Amino acid sequence: MINIINIAILGFGNIGSGVADVLKRNMALVNSAVGDEIYIKYVLDKRDLSQTPYADRAVHDFETILSDDSVSIVCEMLGGTQPAYDYSMAALKAGKSVITSNKEVVARFGINLVKAASENGVYYLYEASVGGAIPIVRTMKGALIGTEINRIDGILNGTTNYILTRMHDCSLSFDDALSEARRLGYAETNPTADISGADSCRKICILAAVAWGAMVPSELVHCEGITDITTEDEEFARSCGGVLKLVATAKKVNEVISLCVTPCVVLSGNPIASASEAFNAVKIDAGDMGNIMLYGMGAGKYPTASAIISDMIYAAGMRDKHHSERGWYDLSKVAEYADIRYAWCVLAQTSSDEIASVLPKACFLSRSDDECTFICEDISLKELKEKMSEMTVKKLIRALV
Amino acid sequence: MINIINIAILGFGNIGSGVADVLKRNMALVNSAVGDEIYIKYVLDKRDLSQTPYADRAVHDFETILSDDSVSIVCEMLGGTQPAYDYSMAALKAGKSVITSNKEVVARFGINLVKAASENGVYYLYEASVGGAIPIVRTMKGALIGTEINRIDGILNGTTNYILTRMHDCSLSFDDALSEARRLGYAETNPTADISGADSCRKICILAAVAWGAMVPSELVHCEGITDITTEDEEFARSCGGVLKLVATAKKVNEVISLCVTPCVVLSGNPIASASEAFNAVKIDAGDMGNIMLYGMGAGKYPTASAIISDMIYAAGMRDKHHSERGWYDLSKVAEYADIRYAWCVLAQTSSDEIASVLPKACFLSRSDDECTFICEDISLKELKEKMSEMTVKKLIRALV
Repeated sequence: MINIINIAILGFGNIGSGVADVLKRNMALVNSAVGDEIYIKYVLDKRDLSQTPYADRAVHDFETILSDDSVSIVCEMLGGTQPAYDYSMAALKAGKSVITSNKEVVARFGINLVKAASENGVYYLYEASVGGAIPIVRTMKGALIGTEINRIDGILNGTTNYILTRMHDCSLSFDDALSEARRLGYAETNPTADISGADSCRKICILAAVAWGAMVPSELVHCEGITDITTEDEEFARSCGGVLKLVATAKKVNEVISLCVTPCVVLSGNPIASASEAFNAVKIDAGDMGNIMLYGMGAGKYPTASAIISDMIYAAGMRDKHHSERGWYDLSKVAEYADIRYAWCVLAQTSSDEIASVLPKACFLSRSDDECTFICEDISLKELKEKMSEMTVKKLIRALV
Repeated sequence: MINIINIAILGFGNIGSGVADVLKRNMALVNSAVGDEIYIKYVLDKRDLSQTPYADRAVHDFETILSDDSVSIVCEMLGGTQPAYDYSMAALKAGKSVITSNKEVVARFGINLVKAASENGVYYLYEASVGGAIPIVRTMKGALIGTEINRIDGILNGTTNYILTRMHDCSLSFDDALSEARRLGYAETNPTADISGADSCRKICILAAVAWGAMVPSELVHCEGITDITTEDEEFARSCGGVLKLVATAKKVNEVISLCVTPCVVLSGNPIASASEAFNAVKIDAGDMGNIMLYGMGAGKYPTASAIISDMIYAAGMRDKHHSERGWYDLSKVAEYADIRYAWCVLAQTSSDEIASVLPKACFLSRSDDECTFICEDISLKELKEKMSEMTVKKLIRALV
């Protein structure tokens, strides 16, 4: 017997209308995957939807959805934390699964929402909140669930990656690349959340929570954006054999979890160096599995809508399955950025002999009598600066080897 | 209440002993993911296991395992088609899930085994048979299940990729690179299945079956290996801005499915170009999701063992869930390789004007008065050869743009 699974769409903007489009287009595939029939029963939006195919299903009051027991899945694509959070919480408590693309809500209130879902035997799913179409959350919760995760490095923001790609490929300045990204619709009118690194920061917090259950408040994460990047930095990265990317990193070493978002020289041997333009990539150091990398469209109407639908199929197909997601806990004590060991690309105004005497592990990329470029791995910023305290450091950028 | 889930390991070679090792090392993680306790009750091998920790669980007769109703999961890592196929079929019919790394069995008998699993309400899982640790099968059956899959391109064999990487990076000849791969354990004493492309071929057949349910007999697939590759081909690929890889491709265009395995010039903008040495990469053109790429260790004891364990967790955790996998069907009518549209890198002894007159879409990479190099996309080999029948073609290699 085929059942109807009623869903509600909250927010009929870019992503919300994309979900409706893709559902319509792929209806046969989706229904066959679920084994039942998905039906959009309500669309909630402040706007007038009378000119859309969903005019007869438009509602302006969330209570209508909440009180309708026939609705089992709510897709929240409202943006902003309120009323998105309140609606999500109310839906979960009413026994409805919630699917979201809203990274702000997941990063800030994920602990409560994951807990509420578990307590009410429903799902809170957020694949679309990180990496667009890339099935990173599902992979970590599924294929990688039996493997220790040691480290995650991600290019998680399409806007900044587009800007950096243009700076790299066409030697544009940051301002010119940003203007172009705006013109092409890759950057919003107010691109602050992207270029400040805040967006990447929320996403790496979500991935760390998935990996280790530890939700670090994003305000506590060391986060540098790309606003101060110069064409000189870009050229330096190139001279090191790499490319400049905004990289979010989460590490767990001896039970200490640390997160950061910074511009990074990604050396060409690292597979995430291949993510250019608006693509995203996430590399996971997954214990016995070795390094796994996932790459795909990090944003965009249809890629993000597809991730929502992928979660929808999961929630619908698995609705009778007992489940309990591991709860998240609040990790407010994090290590200082300067104390965590990373790799670094350095341009120093000194001889390579002098560098080698204080940093025996330095790997030189170029050297002259009074200047040298090198990579130093597995050392904290604090220690690196101490060792080089007598020297003139002309460039110092985190690296991904 | 915690239940014990008894498993049996068939074949205690490299992968089989790896499964035992990883299970032991990650026991807490695995059991927590399953919610119950996994226990290795039997290890079947012809060899004497008295010096291993599994001496008391060693059996030489499959009947012991088959007739023990307390065994719910059988991990088949025997290699070869027999008795692997018979054991797998018997286990499925006895209501035991079967997990395998044996691509030969999956590619040849997958249709029967998938069907038997479905009929008996158990699982036949084969993640480890394609792409080592890369969770490609799970991703296609999970996150991508609601999306049309148009095309799959994969670097699916670590041995050949290692050889080609060494030819590229160090200008080694094929023979020298193969000798080195053997010395380092990347190639077997008899590397025929790898270097002939047969291994990649079986794997792309499996991926096509997962994507579209269509199991193409691997004998029917156009398959070229890397044995005839010269350093000249390698240099040509480089001059085109790419790198030579052994690429397996599966396409579905207007309901026509076509598969092939050939050396390919992978242009540097394509993310699978980043897969070097023994890494594998699979790129999927996934409709609304856009291009997705997964990358990871394509072989090796622990990566492959981890994929087995990942399937084990799935089979154990989902054992009470009703499921029916889409059946596979036998697709013995496939399009001719020469009729399928691909992209090509060509070096022709003629002027670019002449080329442009017959191939208006050709994109020139270099040209002189009497020679030119160009890329031509979306054209069949037959058509390309017809158009150039009056010209001297000095190099012609399939390309991935």
